[in-house]
Amino acid sequence: MAKVGIVMGSDSDMPIMAQAAEILEQFGIDYEMNIISAHREPDIFFDWAKNAESRGIRVIIAGAGKAAHLPGMCAALFPMPVIGIPMKTSDLGGVDSLYSIVQMPGGIPVATVAINGGKNAGILAAKILAVSDTGLLGKLKEYSENMKNEVVKKDEKLREAGYRAFLADK
Amino acid sequence: MAKVGIVMGSDSDMPIMAQAAEILEQFGIDYEMNIISAHREPDIFFDWAKNAESRGIRVIIAGAGKAAHLPGMCAALFPMPVIGIPMKTSDLGGVDSLYSIVQMPGGIPVATVAINGGKNAGILAAKILAVSDTGLLGKLKEYSENMKNEVVKKDEKLREAGYRAFLADK
Amino acid sequence: MAKVGIVMGSDSDMPIMAQAAEILEQFGIDYEMNIISAHREPDIFFDWAKNAESRGIRVIIAGAGKAAHLPGMCAALFPMPVIGIPMKTSDLGGVDSLYSIVQMPGGIPVATVAINGGKNAGILAAKILAVSDTGLLGKLKEYSENMKNEVVKKDEKLREAGYRAFLADK
Amino acid sequence: MAKVGIVMGSDSDMPIMAQAAEILEQFGIDYEMNIISAHREPDIFFDWAKNAESRGIRVIIAGAGKAAHLPGMCAALFPMPVIGIPMKTSDLGGVDSLYSIVQMPGGIPVATVAINGGKNAGILAAKILAVSDTGLLGKLKEYSENMKNEVVKKDEKLREAGYRAFLADK
Amino acid sequence: MAKVGIVMGSDSDMPIMAQAAEILEQFGIDYEMNIISAHREPDIFFDWAKNAESRGIRVIIAGAGKAAHLPGMCAALFPMPVIGIPMKTSDLGGVDSLYSIVQMPGGIPVATVAINGGKNAGILAAKILAVSDTGLLGKLKEYSENMKNEVVKKDEKLREAGYRAFLADK
Amino acid sequence: MAKVGIVMGSDSDMPIMAQAAEILEQFGIDYEMNIISAHREPDIFFDWAKNAESRGIRVIIAGAGKAAHLPGMCAALFPMPVIGIPMKTSDLGGVDSLYSIVQMPGGIPVATVAINGGKNAGILAAKILAVSDTGLLGKLKEYSENMKNEVVKKDEKLREAGYRAFLADK
Amino acid sequence: MAKVGIVMGSDSDMPIMAQAAEILEQFGIDYEMNIISAHREPDIFFDWAKNAESRGIRVIIAGAGKAAHLPGMCAALFPMPVIGIPMKTSDLGGVDSLYSIVQMPGGIPVATVAINGGKNAGILAAKILAVSDTGLLGKLKEYSENMKNEVVKKDEKLREAGYRAFLADK
Amino acid sequence: MAKVGIVMGSDSDMPIMAQAAEILEQFGIDYEMNIISAHREPDIFFDWAKNAESRGIRVIIAGAGKAAHLPGMCAALFPMPVIGIPMKTSDLGGVDSLYSIVQMPGGIPVATVAINGGKNAGILAAKILAVSDTGLLGKLKEYSENMKNEVVKKDEKLREAGYRAFLADK
Repeated sequence: MAKVGIVMGSDSDMPIMAQAAEILEQFGIDYEMNIISAHREPDIFFDWAKNAESRGIRVIIAGAGKAAHLPGMCAALFPMPVIGIPMKTSDLGGVDSLYSIVQMPGGIPVATVAINGGKNAGILAAKILAVSDTGLLGKLKEYSENMKNEVVKKDEKLREAGYRAFLADK
Repeated sequence: MAKVGIVMGSDSDMPIMAQAAEILEQFGIDYEMNIISAHREPDIFFDWAKNAESRGIRVIIAGAGKAAHLPGMCAALFPMPVIGIPMKTSDLGGVDSLYSIVQMPGGIPVATVAINGGKNAGILAAKILAVSDTGLLGKLKEYSENMKNEVVKKDEKLREAGYRAFLADK
Repeated sequence: MAKVGIVMGSDSDMPIMAQAAEILEQFGIDYEMNIISAHREPDIFFDWAKNAESRGIRVIIAGAGKAAHLPGMCAALFPMPVIGIPMKTSDLGGVDSLYSIVQMPGGIPVATVAINGGKNAGILAAKILAVSDTGLLGKLKEYSENMKNEVVKKDEKLREAGYRAFLADK
Repeated sequence: MAKVGIVMGSDSDMPIMAQAAEILEQFGIDYEMNIISAHREPDIFFDWAKNAESRGIRVIIAGAGKAAHLPGMCAALFPMPVIGIPMKTSDLGGVDSLYSIVQMPGGIPVATVAINGGKNAGILAAKILAVSDTGLLGKLKEYSENMKNEVVKKDEKLREAGYRAFLADK
Repeated sequence: MAKVGIVMGSDSDMPIMAQAAEILEQFGIDYEMNIISAHREPDIFFDWAKNAESRGIRVIIAGAGKAAHLPGMCAALFPMPVIGIPMKTSDLGGVDSLYSIVQMPGGIPVATVAINGGKNAGILAAKILAVSDTGLLGKLKEYSENMKNEVVKKDEKLREAGYRAFLADK
Repeated sequence: MAKVGIVMGSDSDMPIMAQAAEILEQFGIDYEMNIISAHREPDIFFDWAKNAESRGIRVIIAGAGKAAHLPGMCAALFPMPVIGIPMKTSDLGGVDSLYSIVQMPGGIPVATVAINGGKNAGILAAKILAVSDTGLLGKLKEYSENMKNEVVKKDEKLREAGYRAFLADK
Repeated sequence: MAKVGIVMGSDSDMPIMAQAAEILEQFGIDYEMNIISAHREPDIFFDWAKNAESRGIRVIIAGAGKAAHLPGMCAALFPMPVIGIPMKTSDLGGVDSLYSIVQMPGGIPVATVAINGGKNAGILAAKILAVSDTGLLGKLKEYSENMKNEVVKKDEKLREAGYRAFLADK
Repeated sequence: MAKVGIVMGSDSDMPIMAQAAEILEQFGIDYEMNIISAHREPDIFFDWAKNAESRGIRVIIAGAGKAAHLPGMCAALFPMPVIGIPMKTSDLGGVDSLYSIVQMPGGIPVATVAINGGKNAGILAAKILAVSDTGLLGKLKEYSENMKNEVVKKDEKLREAGYRAFLADK
């Protein structure tokens, strides 16, 4: 049964939302993924968000751009954590999406990640579930260890080859 | 029967929303005024917005601040014009409210006025109704004429008294 | 007789203004379309805006970029609703256009839509006319229904094919 | 044993951080509260953050202003969720704090709430813990119900008294 | 006969516009000063701006705030230099006014000074007139010399008294 | 003898500065054009700016990008009008250049035009010189007339061909 | 002989510049302090900056607001490090000052500190001198130790008294 | 023994960091260069920064993007000057990086250069070392002389060839 619900208002957001899905797969976390627009189909959205808890969803990841209302409306209807991903926009760079998601009024928080931060949304969902899942917590620590090792390797390569060779090799 | 629905998510927005109400009263337009939060009571909000048309509402004026979703969610549920008023915020000056209201995605427009533009929201509602109401259109023209006369009087006072006396008299 | 006047200050705005025209055609609303610059030909602009009402125009859609004065000056001269479209700009992303249009002083509102929001300007004009036109209101409801169905179809496709196939297919 | 660690870099942040503490008390969640600066005492900070897990901490709430590094450095050292509160700043309104907290690079998310969003940080921490605590989840639903009722009461008062009396009474 | 026309759209701008007037008086330059709104009385404005040249006006100083169209519309109607003063605004600090004035499209420049830069607008007008008036140019050089001497005196005071006494004396 | 000095700090600004030169040529105004950096060769710059008046220069057009000090330093050294052109920047879009040029302190105005506004800088210089040159003023009026006619022609083409053909033809 | 030159363009900047002076006094570093305006007295400024090296100055701390050119022009004339302090401004919060100082073109760096960061400018000057002064380096380490101890004490007070008493005591 | 430590959190920053290295090579200054992430390997980072002094490092140049904590954390751990380079970001242009680096709290300055200012970071490091190295100071003066000569040559070419030929030749 899916523990994480990934939802986006438009399929144009999918390349970013897919990053979250990939992370969840990597950690072995079941998820469902939907294109549901709070603006274009408010009834369907309401049902989806209100029933998410009964479907077993524990965390929602919602991505949206511009005047982005999807994450905040999820947080109004779903009692557990909602993670919001502000989409980059072609005119304002995503500041509009960011403000529309992070500046939630008192009582209805959205856990906001960086603009286009699909990957981090997936990791944050895993961290939330890891609060009560030591197996998952172990996987997260391993993930961090791997990130560290990648940087270490790059640093070694730089020190061995010098920056000119490093840049030429990229 | 009320033709305009004025709605705000929090009573802290009322000083601005009252400006819209005063304008409507001045033009003799019936309105209803409510405090309804899309975030804190989504079910009540949904019912209110979906039934607005059947109550006779023709235009909704919605004001909200920060990650302001009320105007956009009204526009998702109500088929006629929704006017959005972005509230000034103490940290970002209202840019967060403005972006959350004006940057609506394709298909669901919100007619956005200036930050804290309660008065202009009332006038815009009147202009919308005046499209099919020549009596109201006449009142709007009179209103414009009065605005003009006020400026003319101030200009006369300035030219007579000079700017020093004008400033001292304020 | 045209009910909507679409006006732009420069033909470089036409790709966005055309989106408004297409929407109006889709809803069967007569419109006129002009390139008239408030800055480059103020006399022609004044005559055009002052006579719009007598030509039968009920709503003006005005698009402009940078220090965008066209929508606001329309609102100064035309007594019914003026919809403003802020054009995206290459340096400031359209924030300059947005502020120049939305931040109108008290008494002269412009109903502002999103940056490059030509489509939404057309829909807003239709919504304004639908206040007194139940046939048009029906078409708008149908339009919303179609938007909803498109999202539903995409969601079905996503759930059937998975996001990898969905992305590959785009 | 404390489940939530509240940490701030400066005691000037305490009025906002206290809002988070009050919420946790309201929900009966044990917490610890510290003033620890990542900049002024990096060694103490490192020990505190690395040992948080072994002290039983499941969620960290970190508040900081200006070039705010505390939340992000917590996220680098603590494997479970870190909630970041950007402090309002007197010059830039808190945009500097917000960007320094929310724009985290891939791999190290910070769950960011609104500028000065101490209350929402507390609620988000409770929501995270409620993922595996049905008793706490019940309390959160009750909290939402109470928020709703408060708005309903204000709306009733408005409709009974009218906005003029409502404003005068505030 | 007045050589400089000072115009503002609202008497709330007068404290800033008065700074320009004071400078012109200091340099012995004749000016006229008016409150004329391009938005509230477009006909009067048009006549005023079109006839400015025939009244002997050589430079216009126009101040306006928010969606500030007055300077740009002056530049559309008056063939000689127009100086624009963006007014500080309570919500956006005057960025809205600045963009609305400085970002003029090709062909219709406005010589923009700083936000609330009434004094500099007056000096710029004098500099423009001094291009063909060596007497005035001499006065401007004297003015610069005086500015220099004031700074020199303050520097002397600082070096004699030290910063603590200097600050205490302010 | 050159009446206008065009100066830029870097040859990367030349495409924009050339627009100003072209306008001056079009109006038959003699100009000199230099690459002189206030930062890289302050001595040369000082001599150039201090001697500009004695070379016959009546207006300086200075363009610069990023932390743009060239226009302001010209205004500190040259007693007649200085026009500043803020260059578009690849990271901040030119807001940095704009603020560095327009926000001059009291006493030293720079007549600022739009970001990348080379053409308008040329026209503004012409307008300044036209204050005491009726022949030039006539040319400026003709220029405006031509701008107007171009828009009129485009409008005619649009009304004859319709927007689809107009767009296809571009 | 003074090793650090503190310079400001206006005595309104002195409260912030005094913070830098206090830090230098605390570290026993000789400094000179001047009010010298690059805009109002460019000749005096040039002499001052060009002769700074021969007077023994090793680091310049320059503060300025709005279109802040003083730090950058110091960097153009003085071959050793220049530290820039962007002053907070009443309209734009100091973003104008910040961009005017930090966005220096290639070849002429200004070491920029935070808006109103007078204290940090003093510390940075000390750190620069400490590169070749182990006695001063020792004092800087002691200063850091003291900062750390102050935070430790506040943390102890918080843990003993609780946040309510801590806040009440402030 | 390396006197300057160049450090970046990600190899994507290397093209900019390489500019600093090239400058240091040009001035004959020994440096070390590392990829070390404060977020991904905080332990390694801490050791590196704490031991930098004992390795002989006198200045650290740290580059980072988005919520950029590397320069500030270096400044918390290293007692001598830290130069911060804010990386341009694809969504916000680098304002996020800039605020995260420049807006450091009192006591822990970072000497911030322009967005993507790798070259200037190198020059600033050299200027800091030149405070106690007259040989290096001489090279810096020579470098400035060369910069000046390049501009002089370009200016000569412009005056000889005219801007049209100059532009065509680029």
